[in-house]
Amino acid sequence: MITFELVAMDSKTSARAGILHTPHGDIPTPVFMPVGTQATVKTLPVWELKELGARIILNNIYHLYLRPGIEKIVKLGGLHSFQSWDGAILTDSGGFQLFSLPDLRKVNDEGVLFQSHFDGSYHFITPEKATEIQFAAGADIIMAFDDCISLPASIDKLEEAVDRTISWAKRCKEKYIQLIEESNVANPPSLFGIYQGGTDIDLRKKALEKILDIDFPGIAIGGLSVGEAKDDMLSVLEETVPIIPEDKPRYLMGVGKPTDIMDAVTRGIDMFDCVLPTRNARNGSVYTWKGKLIVKAGAHATDETPIDPDCSCKVCKRYSKAYIRHLFNVGELLAPHLATYHTIYFYLDFIRKMREAIIDGNFSKFCERFRSEFSEKPDTPSDAR
Amino acid sequence: MITFELVAMDSKTSARAGILHTPHGDIPTPVFMPVGTQATVKTLPVWELKELGARIILNNIYHLYLRPGIEKIVKLGGLHSFQSWDGAILTDSGGFQLFSLPDLRKVNDEGVLFQSHFDGSYHFITPEKATEIQFAAGADIIMAFDDCISLPASIDKLEEAVDRTISWAKRCKEKYIQLIEESNVANPPSLFGIYQGGTDIDLRKKALEKILDIDFPGIAIGGLSVGEAKDDMLSVLEETVPIIPEDKPRYLMGVGKPTDIMDAVTRGIDMFDCVLPTRNARNGSVYTWKGKLIVKAGAHATDETPIDPDCSCKVCKRYSKAYIRHLFNVGELLAPHLATYHTIYFYLDFIRKMREAIIDGNFSKFCERFRSEFSEKPDTPSDAR
Repeated sequence: MITFELVAMDSKTSARAGILHTPHGDIPTPVFMPVGTQATVKTLPVWELKELGARIILNNIYHLYLRPGIEKIVKLGGLHSFQSWDGAILTDSGGFQLFSLPDLRKVNDEGVLFQSHFDGSYHFITPEKATEIQFAAGADIIMAFDDCISLPASIDKLEEAVDRTISWAKRCKEKYIQLIEESNVANPPSLFGIYQGGTDIDLRKKALEKILDIDFPGIAIGGLSVGEAKDDMLSVLEETVPIIPEDKPRYLMGVGKPTDIMDAVTRGIDMFDCVLPTRNARNGSVYTWKGKLIVKAGAHATDETPIDPDCSCKVCKRYSKAYIRHLFNVGELLAPHLATYHTIYFYLDFIRKMREAIIDGNFSKFCERFRSEFSEKPDTPSDAR
Repeated sequence: MITFELVAMDSKTSARAGILHTPHGDIPTPVFMPVGTQATVKTLPVWELKELGARIILNNIYHLYLRPGIEKIVKLGGLHSFQSWDGAILTDSGGFQLFSLPDLRKVNDEGVLFQSHFDGSYHFITPEKATEIQFAAGADIIMAFDDCISLPASIDKLEEAVDRTISWAKRCKEKYIQLIEESNVANPPSLFGIYQGGTDIDLRKKALEKILDIDFPGIAIGGLSVGEAKDDMLSVLEETVPIIPEDKPRYLMGVGKPTDIMDAVTRGIDMFDCVLPTRNARNGSVYTWKGKLIVKAGAHATDETPIDPDCSCKVCKRYSKAYIRHLFNVGELLAPHLATYHTIYFYLDFIRKMREAIIDGNFSKFCERFRSEFSEKPDTPSDAR
């Protein structure tokens, strides 16, 4: 089972460094979990994930349920064996993925009826089913099934989603206890709870308290980074994260940009995931210590320097911007791979350095310096070809 | 400059083992050169090419001339520096690529007028220009510009192509000598000659003798594997390869399948290139010691075994057919990468084992065993999904 060990707390902020003990290794926190939607962090073989220092990745149970199907994954020995990954795995419950396809789904208190995004087949997912398939797939951390809605939303809609998420969380926990009792798994997954409530602070607090009552070993903040203003997101963190007991890891789902991650670490968050770095990289836009860089832009066509001269990754040691730009320009498969490798290296390096700064008591200085050197605005116009 | 050292000759066939000494390292022959059309062996970063044991790769000057352009490559330090590859490089002259686009080109004795396959711009390539741009790009081996035609062809057409290729070869050599004299390059490229003649043995012999008169350090057989029967190809090799002096490496352009390579090695060929293994791999079809395997086929959906249980590559050590099939099925970028890695490993392993067998005096036994175990017919129907 998952346990969380607190290693250091920043004296000026709520930032903290810890270790998440999992059946598949210890994970220093704060941690960024690269997203492997379909049981592969896009373009990266497992030996490169290892090399990059990834200790935990995320898989999407919604996608895997549709293809190849959970029974196939179970037959092939579970998620770790299937993708040949011996680090830790977190699966999300599908709540957010179902939220992403509003035209294809119908929600009621029992569960969600949806149509497969690839073959149109109908499926009905309940909290019990979401728990059962995640449990069977065999991740280290599985997530309660939640009702995630887009923002802004009316208070009625928000309350409905909160109540449903709480009721579903209880049903997930009950199913989980039953599965633990029935199964003979040596290292069963740990079930994390999720609280919703949009940007309404009172609703968030109420939701969090109910979720804490159910007693999960880890708490996730869901339903943020879905259209709200950044300050509103940060207020939710400031007002609710301190309520979570110190010994529970806090996971901010789906966030995000490097500066968002830093601001959330400052407010006590331990765990992150986001498709942004891998998705951007595939599209020719990478991160460096100076900010975003459109490496596929024509402006780099004769630039002999690496993506980031301050980066020690093997892509930056070997390849120039000009070469990577050429690969994007002629549509070569190596292009998204090299860009992804560098970007994940940057993300993991960035979060590792934040952790070191927290432990060394330099976190505020680190943030100040990062903020002064890093820009989310790309240094090259995206249409420069 | 390139020199060729003969290491061993098979007693029963014309197969030979040698070493090609190049400015970028010694290359054991027979050798298969992975094709990196656009300055990248599709999906493979240079550290994997190294790991796979590749010592020489092929680049297509036609593609690189169009994108990114030779002047950019020169500005970026030449082909080795551009793609961060410190092994040897051979560039082909574009003759075959221009042959591949008959609708977009016009040939006369002066050269070839063609339209770019991607932006429609017009370009005129002469033997002098083909030599100049290859020389400037800085490969270790560059190829004479030839007139390659599809087979079957009338004797008139064949003779015209042969005469033109010989005349162009002379002009390439003259231009090459001029470039050597004018340049201060420490390790200038070596220029190889190409003989044409279709499957007409007399014409081939005449063509070869004229090409030998021009005196190139290596000789390529062009215009085969372009539609002729396999026996006709082998007859051309049997009748002409023995005419080539022993100290000259023999390069059979664009061939091919494992069994074709073995048959050509048997007839004294030292060097090979072909897009087949990388192209097939990208499309979900790989080679094993038992033959072709459609790894993307649904038949493998729950197969826990690797692509080839007899293979020691890192893909076969880590991943199952079921997983790789899943990656192909859901369109993941990792799929073509893993399939290509394994396939190039197989090709290089296969040719390395042939070389060992020649040196150990077991070549005929090796061929017999390979032929009995290997099948070009896939073991899985390609439409099984």
